[in-house]
Amino acid sequence: MHDPLPLLLAMLIVFGSAKLLAELFERLGQPGLVGEILAGALIGPSVLGWIAPNETLKALSDLGVMFLLFGVGLEVKASELLKVGGKAMLVATIGVIVPFLAGWGILFAWGAPQLEAVFVGAAMVATSVGITASVLSARGLLHEIASKIILAAAVIDDVLGLIVLAVVSGIARGRVNVWEIALTAGLASGFTVLMAVWGTTALNRLLPHFASRARADEAKFHIALVFLFAMALLAQYTGVAAIVGAFLAGLALTDGADARVRTLTRGVSELLVPFFLVGIGLNLNLRLFRSKSIVALALLILAAAIVTKLVGCGIGALSLGWENALKVGLGMVPRGEVGMVVAQIGLGMAVIRSEVYGVVVFMAVATTLVAPLLLKIAFRAPQPLRAS
Amino acid sequence: MHDPLPLLLAMLIVFGSAKLLAELFERLGQPGLVGEILAGALIGPSVLGWIAPNETLKALSDLGVMFLLFGVGLEVKASELLKVGGKAMLVATIGVIVPFLAGWGILFAWGAPQLEAVFVGAAMVATSVGITASVLSARGLLHEIASKIILAAAVIDDVLGLIVLAVVSGIARGRVNVWEIALTAGLASGFTVLMAVWGTTALNRLLPHFASRARADEAKFHIALVFLFAMALLAQYTGVAAIVGAFLAGLALTDGADARVRTLTRGVSELLVPFFLVGIGLNLNLRLFRSKSIVALALLILAAAIVTKLVGCGIGALSLGWENALKVGLGMVPRGEVGMVVAQIGLGMAVIRSEVYGVVVFMAVATTLVAPLLLKIAFRAPQPLRAS
Repeated sequence: MHDPLPLLLAMLIVFGSAKLLAELFERLGQPGLVGEILAGALIGPSVLGWIAPNETLKALSDLGVMFLLFGVGLEVKASELLKVGGKAMLVATIGVIVPFLAGWGILFAWGAPQLEAVFVGAAMVATSVGITASVLSARGLLHEIASKIILAAAVIDDVLGLIVLAVVSGIARGRVNVWEIALTAGLASGFTVLMAVWGTTALNRLLPHFASRARADEAKFHIALVFLFAMALLAQYTGVAAIVGAFLAGLALTDGADARVRTLTRGVSELLVPFFLVGIGLNLNLRLFRSKSIVALALLILAAAIVTKLVGCGIGALSLGWENALKVGLGMVPRGEVGMVVAQIGLGMAVIRSEVYGVVVFMAVATTLVAPLLLKIAFRAPQPLRAS
Repeated sequence: MHDPLPLLLAMLIVFGSAKLLAELFERLGQPGLVGEILAGALIGPSVLGWIAPNETLKALSDLGVMFLLFGVGLEVKASELLKVGGKAMLVATIGVIVPFLAGWGILFAWGAPQLEAVFVGAAMVATSVGITASVLSARGLLHEIASKIILAAAVIDDVLGLIVLAVVSGIARGRVNVWEIALTAGLASGFTVLMAVWGTTALNRLLPHFASRARADEAKFHIALVFLFAMALLAQYTGVAAIVGAFLAGLALTDGADARVRTLTRGVSELLVPFFLVGIGLNLNLRLFRSKSIVALALLILAAAIVTKLVGCGIGALSLGWENALKVGLGMVPRGEVGMVVAQIGLGMAVIRSEVYGVVVFMAVATTLVAPLLLKIAFRAPQPLRAS
């Protein structure tokens, strides 16, 4: 399948299969996005082999998750996230340390070289907030306290993951430059905090000024898009993920964006988000699993990936009660595209072997499939306060 | 500029510059889309050289014009277009013959080889309906009789252009297979007529059936998108342009789509259409014009491209009065991406030299820039019927 399919055929297959399986899953009472990810696994190299990842599908997928996070940001107030900042910091920190140690320990016990073990640990650190955000947004749960902690913790988690990756890459290269890492960490945290704290105020002052003077139709939406691209790009330059920038852009526009801007954004998301979800499934390649030992490792790593985030993040949120701790823990489980990126860097540095890369990708995709199913159960449980 | 810019930076530059120049042109009282095309010429290889055409930008541009035509189709009823079918056929036919002969004659007189002259004639045939549709839609003029004739004639024009290209390519290859060309023509016309005549009826029966049973949010929009991709693809297979398929898909959904579907489609268009407009400008490369003789040829071809469509299509619409004839003639002037595709095929077959290719691209871009400015004036003139 090296000859790329014509764009339109690829789009029809990706979008059509995603929506077909989403509908099927909804009818089975399960989250539709699990169906969309499975559609990717089905049409990808593991099963049917119809679609292989390519540059344009990757671009649509990157844009999809960007618009997904932008849309989620539009629904949440920065001030509410800042209120739970302390708890989220605790959740993120414990939720980074525990999976890292588990991944490292398991690979080490399995007999992998020290560096490979450290890299797998690093790949287990970062949460993919896209999946959880999508589940919570689709079910209208973004305003629960657990949801806010998950969103804030995922942003902090991304900054922590960046630092872990910088340290681990330094170790692999043979020298850890402490000042460089401190600078990276400072820049990334600085951008995030600045945007979260003053972004809304700045936008509330600037947006009406521009929007009221513009002559073009839909000028507010155009300004929002330019701001989105600029913030995603700035985030990339400071080292955090583009989607964190997109989320912060959404947060800053929460007050400024009207219903029209939200609906137009929704149109873009409805088109592009399936490419993100299918793209995650496409990466799964079960044909890499050639020995029983690798299959066993994959299952062990998967179990560890789920349990460590559940327990690590859960402990961080325990002061809010068992139920919220469970929700937060489950919400942080999906690793998605973030874990894959770390594994790819390891592969590129020849520190991770291709079979171990396959294991990490399996963990990333499988956590993403399992979490929404568990989240659905956790958020269905009756809330004590509303029980009356 | 062979190293492609990161996607996000390219998107920010393309989208930002397009909207900035659109705003500037609106303030000067000119159509915004002329500013967006000029933004492409400005950031492209001709002037600043910031952005070079690449695969992903091309994909976004292709999707942009597809959604543009889909959106226009949603605003128009197929039955109304069929009513003006006879007139549109006349407009399209004369409007194909006159520019073809002019292009051929000019190149022949300039001393070009016979085959090159024929190919330039073929490149001058096809109207790019995207530009005119965008102008008419933005100004709310889609329901004027002239607008309907333009849309219907542009669709017929595309089928005629396909036949001309098939004949001309056959001549270049040294053998014209009449049966193959008849089959192509039959398939393309069959698909177009079938969709225009029965598409709406079929969709009106099928859509409510699916949409009412679907469990997912925004299911109607998803079904519309799948239908859009399928029709665009089918159009490509039968030989007509994907955008004609997209337009026919929109037509078929005119009754079935509700306001929500239209607004969500609008969101996608607002994001993607600037990539189409900037993409046209990006193709302009004035650095190819090295001799005075080529500059003279370019200006002559441009003048002929404008005058021949204006007169040819105008004659076809003369029964509706001078004013409507002027509107229709001007509406058919833009050649845009369609003329470029024909020239590219000629370049690929080594029938067109690179300097003549540059001339055709210049003609395609320049007609696209001039037409909206003239259209604005033509549609501003008071209508006799509404004068009271």
